[in-house]
Amino acid sequence: MTPVFLSESESAALVDDDLALAAAREAFLATATGSVFPVVIAHSSVPHNRFTLKSGSAGDLAGVKVGSFWPGNTDLPRHSSTIVLLDPATGRLRAVVEAAAANAYRTAAADALAVQALARNDSRTLTVIGTGHQALHEVRAVSRVRPIDRVLVVGRRADAARAFAADVTARTGLPAEPVGAEAGVCAADVLVTATTSREPLFDARWVRPGTHVSAMGADGPGKQELPVELYERAALFCDLPDQSSAIGEFQHASGTPVALGAVLAGDAPGRTSDDDVTVFDSSGFALQDLTLAAALLRRSSGETA
Amino acid sequence: MTPVFLSESESAALVDDDLALAAAREAFLATATGSVFPVVIAHSSVPHNRFTLKSGSAGDLAGVKVGSFWPGNTDLPRHSSTIVLLDPATGRLRAVVEAAAANAYRTAAADALAVQALARNDSRTLTVIGTGHQALHEVRAVSRVRPIDRVLVVGRRADAARAFAADVTARTGLPAEPVGAEAGVCAADVLVTATTSREPLFDARWVRPGTHVSAMGADGPGKQELPVELYERAALFCDLPDQSSAIGEFQHASGTPVALGAVLAGDAPGRTSDDDVTVFDSSGFALQDLTLAAALLRRSSGETA
Repeated sequence: MTPVFLSESESAALVDDDLALAAAREAFLATATGSVFPVVIAHSSVPHNRFTLKSGSAGDLAGVKVGSFWPGNTDLPRHSSTIVLLDPATGRLRAVVEAAAANAYRTAAADALAVQALARNDSRTLTVIGTGHQALHEVRAVSRVRPIDRVLVVGRRADAARAFAADVTARTGLPAEPVGAEAGVCAADVLVTATTSREPLFDARWVRPGTHVSAMGADGPGKQELPVELYERAALFCDLPDQSSAIGEFQHASGTPVALGAVLAGDAPGRTSDDDVTVFDSSGFALQDLTLAAALLRRSSGETA
Repeated sequence: MTPVFLSESESAALVDDDLALAAAREAFLATATGSVFPVVIAHSSVPHNRFTLKSGSAGDLAGVKVGSFWPGNTDLPRHSSTIVLLDPATGRLRAVVEAAAANAYRTAAADALAVQALARNDSRTLTVIGTGHQALHEVRAVSRVRPIDRVLVVGRRADAARAFAADVTARTGLPAEPVGAEAGVCAADVLVTATTSREPLFDARWVRPGTHVSAMGADGPGKQELPVELYERAALFCDLPDQSSAIGEFQHASGTPVALGAVLAGDAPGRTSDDDVTVFDSSGFALQDLTLAAALLRRSSGETA
């Protein structure tokens, strides 16, 4: 079997929110039976140019994502991504999918999936903390799964928050405005953090009963976006409990969060009342990449994903 | 820059012993300044189907080899290999090289390089313990760097050893014969082990002064091909000292082996007399794969490697 190669421009043209959301659902459901292997954090000869290896297997999928972060890139995005799939029957190379653009959809789709599973059905106000490239993907993906009619933007820099809000409106048609952290958190039905912060971004007391919070920021030891006081009154969910407790947001929490996959499968309760505060931490796992690549390949070959 | 893809048939047609030996030399010299990252041992949904990730960087090379072992393969080799190179300037995908056939040349080239650096110049008798696919590559590669005029074959099964000896003669023109372990070890100028053994293959007392020994067998905790008594009277060399002491042959040795790269660079002594017993342990490292892929790409694009 000849390996298939999907280039960056091909995968970028194929990906959309529906495909990414379906792939994310498949990945989260597979966490119960699939395997993920230790994450490798590597670097090029220039040590600030980093690449990570996330590998896993589930069903007929096996492979690895090579994610790279070259902070000095100017003409190209700083992040890129290559997914390698092995043929489950032979171990030979099955496909290589370049997926820099698609990777942002993948990460946002995990957030949308959590919102779909955990946020109140009548969630209308979406507050996003963070004004980067990924934050825009989060707004777009989340606003598709709940009747969001207002986006509030919290940024460290006022000009970046204004520009981001304008970008949200231009791309989604939703009214969006920059606000302060307290106003944004207090008003949120869904609160998304998408930053690289290493300290809490807001005061836990600002979070109203019934709010859903998704912490989507970059992961690693020391990473923190949420105040630990929030955990005392919230139900905690994540992608992979072990990973989230080790390098994700819940390294600062006592107790074990519930796997979102278990909620999706009906094996664990999600939100139990309109007053629950639910918190989802996304640290990212290889099965998301493998199901994404497989979905792109199916669409590329003309199958309906 | 569009990524380059070299298929299995292309890389198999491009590889030869000269290319592999030059790439191995480049990799071993790079161990002084390059980086290798933790090896991941992964598996598909069928747990006996394994794949490993070996990643590293040196100079303008950065990437990972995905090596797979599907023991149930019948029509295809059980081992295969895919090397992913990143563009050092951008972190984007630079090339994907399928390298199942080339991988056997790569491993044998490390052995040939060690023999070239450490074995007596007048080495004439090559004894190989093991009768598998890789053992044949070892015989061919080693016989090119020393005036080998006789090959002795030690195998657990007499029929396999006879068939292997016939194969050696057919492929190299060298006289080859199956012998018992003691006769083979006693007569060896160069002794190569290429087995998956977990216990010593011979008695240390059978090894004559002046012999060079290369332990090329598969690595992992518990792996052992050589008797520990040999270490007391031998000079010990390996590819990566930390790795060899952790998962390679020298997990059973006290003391730290010398990196072959340091010998090649003139920074450490190799053989110091015709009576030395030298032992080289190959556990394999990512830089071998990266330099191999780069050499194949250069040859593919028409450059003289």
